[in-house]
Amino acid sequence: MRIRNKPWAMDYLEEHSHIVDITNAYEKNIHDFFEEEQPLHIEIGTGMGTFITELAKRNPDINYLGIELDKNIIIRVVEKIVEMDLKNVRLVLLDANFISDYILPDTASKIYLNFSDPWPKTRHAKRRLTHQTFLSRYESILKPGCAIQFKTDNRGLFEYSLQSLNAYGMKFEEIILDLHEEEPEDNIRTEYEEKFSGNGSKIFFLKASF
Amino acid sequence: MRIRNKPWAMDYLEEHSHIVDITNAYEKNIHDFFEEEQPLHIEIGTGMGTFITELAKRNPDINYLGIELDKNIIIRVVEKIVEMDLKNVRLVLLDANFISDYILPDTASKIYLNFSDPWPKTRHAKRRLTHQTFLSRYESILKPGCAIQFKTDNRGLFEYSLQSLNAYGMKFEEIILDLHEEEPEDNIRTEYEEKFSGNGSKIFFLKASF
Repeated sequence: MRIRNKPWAMDYLEEHSHIVDITNAYEKNIHDFFEEEQPLHIEIGTGMGTFITELAKRNPDINYLGIELDKNIIIRVVEKIVEMDLKNVRLVLLDANFISDYILPDTASKIYLNFSDPWPKTRHAKRRLTHQTFLSRYESILKPGCAIQFKTDNRGLFEYSLQSLNAYGMKFEEIILDLHEEEPEDNIRTEYEEKFSGNGSKIFFLKASF
Repeated sequence: MRIRNKPWAMDYLEEHSHIVDITNAYEKNIHDFFEEEQPLHIEIGTGMGTFITELAKRNPDINYLGIELDKNIIIRVVEKIVEMDLKNVRLVLLDANFISDYILPDTASKIYLNFSDPWPKTRHAKRRLTHQTFLSRYESILKPGCAIQFKTDNRGLFEYSLQSLNAYGMKFEEIILDLHEEEPEDNIRTEYEEKFSGNGSKIFFLKASF
């Protein structure tokens, strides 16, 4: 997703430090970021935040942490959280490579990956968010037996992810190779998903546990 | 596949007992069915036999056994084998449920499943050729570490099969969610695959080993 650079971005984010952590203030201490001590679910790569904010609205008894690398994008999520007055979503400006430094082991109970960058070149496979290096980070921060839930419209990334999760020994809880054909009632479409669902490309869905 | 009943079917098959086993004559003794002692690959459900006969023609140093339940269909495969004068394909009229009675353990080195009956109703899941009951039979007759190779255009069956093979602990060697988009040179289309490839339904491909 390309967003114009906002020179005032860091100022805006600093003013909203109760919603977004840009200084790793809650590293190893994520529960202090939330008002209520509740189960923690994480989305890696929030995009504009439609998914995580709607999910948080529907599930007030769960805390949601959104991880996003791009400060110009994360601003949009902050704006949504302010507007919707959500107390159970917080954000961190972080490279997903450092997720297991930021979050202590055995902390979260679910991870969402939505339309992650496919990194189609083989030499970039290590950057895919379903590469085994990332899976071991997820396994570390998740409580035992917990799941990751993954959506993409990229066939190559989905094929790769099925193989990668299988090789890691994860258990496939649910696989849907055309999510929108009979769209589940609880599916929340991301901005990207909404935009591209009309052009005939299939949405692939996978839920798998450690 | 619906084929008109042929009253002369059994007579025809009996006359070709050097090509098709209808009396379990080679039970526990499959190597005696072939002229050369070579690696054994098995197709379960041959349909009209385009796949197995073409495969056998391309690979004379492998023995192929086709298993088919329907005598009216298997006749068509016998005819192809006669016409192509193939020495390395043999057939057995058999219910796949009895495959591990017919074939001794540690005998085959590959199993092909092409466009198997999807049995879409949940209560029929046990009849799907990728149900764990069948997987344990395949594991028994295959040599250690050998693979099954599976094609279907049925999304439900493919989703089920990914879950079933994963749950069984099989290793996914290759997954292709649209086989015809960049069709591999060595893909041999079945009659069914040829017929339905034009109508926009995707062909799913999976190779997985024990």
